[in-house]
Amino acid sequence: MTKPLKIALLGCGVVGSQVVRLLREQESDLAARVGAPLELVGVAVRKPGRKRDAEIDPALLTTDAESLVTRDDVDIVVEVIGGIEPARSLILAAMASGKSVVTANKALLAEDGATIHRAARENGADLYFEASVAGAIPLLRPLRESMAGDRVQRVLGIVNGTTNYILDKMDSSGASFTDALEEAQALGYAEADPTADVEGFDAAAKAAILAGIAFHSRVTAADVHREGITEITAADVASAKAMGYVIKLLAICARSDDGRSVGVRVHPAMIPRSHPLAGVREAYNAVFVEAESAGRLMFYGAGAGGAPTASAVLGDIVAVARNRIANTRGPEESTYADLRVHPMGESVTRCHVSLDVADKPGVLARVADIFAKHDVSIQTVRQEGRGDDAQLVLVTHRASDAALSATIESLREMDIVRAVAGVMRVEGDETP
Amino acid sequence: MTKPLKIALLGCGVVGSQVVRLLREQESDLAARVGAPLELVGVAVRKPGRKRDAEIDPALLTTDAESLVTRDDVDIVVEVIGGIEPARSLILAAMASGKSVVTANKALLAEDGATIHRAARENGADLYFEASVAGAIPLLRPLRESMAGDRVQRVLGIVNGTTNYILDKMDSSGASFTDALEEAQALGYAEADPTADVEGFDAAAKAAILAGIAFHSRVTAADVHREGITEITAADVASAKAMGYVIKLLAICARSDDGRSVGVRVHPAMIPRSHPLAGVREAYNAVFVEAESAGRLMFYGAGAGGAPTASAVLGDIVAVARNRIANTRGPEESTYADLRVHPMGESVTRCHVSLDVADKPGVLARVADIFAKHDVSIQTVRQEGRGDDAQLVLVTHRASDAALSATIESLREMDIVRAVAGVMRVEGDETP
Repeated sequence: MTKPLKIALLGCGVVGSQVVRLLREQESDLAARVGAPLELVGVAVRKPGRKRDAEIDPALLTTDAESLVTRDDVDIVVEVIGGIEPARSLILAAMASGKSVVTANKALLAEDGATIHRAARENGADLYFEASVAGAIPLLRPLRESMAGDRVQRVLGIVNGTTNYILDKMDSSGASFTDALEEAQALGYAEADPTADVEGFDAAAKAAILAGIAFHSRVTAADVHREGITEITAADVASAKAMGYVIKLLAICARSDDGRSVGVRVHPAMIPRSHPLAGVREAYNAVFVEAESAGRLMFYGAGAGGAPTASAVLGDIVAVARNRIANTRGPEESTYADLRVHPMGESVTRCHVSLDVADKPGVLARVADIFAKHDVSIQTVRQEGRGDDAQLVLVTHRASDAALSATIESLREMDIVRAVAGVMRVEGDETP
Repeated sequence: MTKPLKIALLGCGVVGSQVVRLLREQESDLAARVGAPLELVGVAVRKPGRKRDAEIDPALLTTDAESLVTRDDVDIVVEVIGGIEPARSLILAAMASGKSVVTANKALLAEDGATIHRAARENGADLYFEASVAGAIPLLRPLRESMAGDRVQRVLGIVNGTTNYILDKMDSSGASFTDALEEAQALGYAEADPTADVEGFDAAAKAAILAGIAFHSRVTAADVHREGITEITAADVASAKAMGYVIKLLAICARSDDGRSVGVRVHPAMIPRSHPLAGVREAYNAVFVEAESAGRLMFYGAGAGGAPTASAVLGDIVAVARNRIANTRGPEESTYADLRVHPMGESVTRCHVSLDVADKPGVLARVADIFAKHDVSIQTVRQEGRGDDAQLVLVTHRASDAALSATIESLREMDIVRAVAGVMRVEGDETP
């Protein structure tokens, strides 16, 4: 048995506390799996006096994170503080002094992954971040390693548990967004300030990380088209339900038809109830990966929470520990493909549109003409109600988002269209 | 760029042909991901003249596999012949001469994994075998690496596409086993001799591999309790359907309640239609992993087929190629926990039992008494029909399989029980 590998933990909140607990409870298993004991030698926190979920020897606590990450005896630095600073500086300092790094920090990797990955490469340091996307679900390692011999075409997933909980609640109980959000907050699934979740920032960061790995290119949070779920109404949900669809907040990373660029976007979309993602309930996450040879794969599990996220962190700790013993490191960031990230307008999707129209002869012909002018082909159309209540409900075939948006704009300008009552993208229903 | 890594392929059937195609079609991507070109330098086949799915330079073909695997210039040997011999001897020879090995051979690993893993260790050789279980689905790497910091409690999965296709067809169309099997054969989902699939041998080999990895113990095919699906009738399927269940052939690897042993079994079982595995249709595979911290994870995808299996093989080729360049190797077999594999009688499950009984007062009391004597507690019971057609349908709570079997035996001996009309285990429905 080799000498102990020493771990410094940055942050001791919901995830950090579970990391501490698991390192202790699984001590002998971890030692057997790594080939050396893992020893927690320091925990950097802002408030040492604060009550925590895990019992921690007070002697391990420190407020001096800078010194901890460069301590001579530390082998592995585990960062679960989150946010950009001081996490970035601490990770860079750790790598510069030869430590291996495990992080769960999606915001940092999505905003400034380039800096972090470059530092890893320059310092020959290991950088593992499985916990940054989809919590306990093994997703980055399979994408980065198991699928390294395949060509990923599309990643389509539910990667934010809070919004999935809210949308699932709206779907199952008919609740409004506000009521569902309040319930999610009461149950601890949503934060007091839910902006990062409900506006799609969290999902967008994860989408950037997923896209970068899946397409071997550099993708940042700023490249991601992002729409949240705050404007989804109970009526939208009911209308989707009536048509056999459910509304989910999706993260979609897709190669363009010519293979030369990728689109990365987060927005609510209707998916058919028969689609496996439709059955993802409550705060669960699930990610579909479509690859040329492997076909469609799905990964499902708990996307957040202390213990599930800590499970992913521990898996990474074991990996970097094994690498240190073998004097090697895991795969570096791979961005060789360097695909262009195209704007939302170039992404291809489908659209569900409800129009309040005057019930007059020729209305459908004139509406259809607008779609045709924008080269958007209509898959289904049906008329509901009569007279003043007449509504046209259309679902398009695949078209560029720019063409779809332009079509909607033109529809709004038509005198026979009283209002565009609803517009929602449709995904996961690949009728060509 | 480093000098090319040279690959020898053993076998060029359904999977091998796709490996050849993908190595050619993805040449530049693979080189970029590995950091060196991958070059196919030889393909061992039995019949060089045979028509194949992939175009292969005839100069690469050889019938002399023994010489190919020890050729000085070969770095990586990819074995997709299947079966025990000559695959085993060739893999051992390859390792002895310093090659890295990628194999899809579940039968060999399940029957004699000890020999193969020992040879890998003694020769310092890499051994990757993702394709041996669940085709394209990344499963072994996540279990072996991503979950290395967690404690797996149970693995529950559909790992044989042929039997899932047959059972799904029986469920959706009411077909008999024989008719569904014939359809599967006509569509190429089942072989002319379907024994390995329908008798559960294929699933048992995969269960042994999964259990060994998940529980860090040595598990062989002989340790696996195995029952096939040949005796499932259309009536069984219909009766399960009426109760809101579906019959699936499951591979179950579960830690005992005291954590000291594992049970590994393959048998048909009823699962509730609300269970995610119930929605796995046609020839798809899906595996549930339950771990202490991660909770429930599911992996879903194509479990067989040339291209999907080749995707997993290529992922492993990239991994061993990277390892060779970095002069390191992947994680060794981990059997430190050395858990006892307990016999089926010690496995804990639930049972659905239909009894043809005489419709007399006191029947239920006497039947219930038999369950109680064997310490098996009844969850639900209902009586169907009256008079000569009376049937008692019972579902038990969790009990050892030995107690359940003994209960059934005692029921068969009762004068008031005309026949035990149906017995089926129930899984995936954890009412305690």
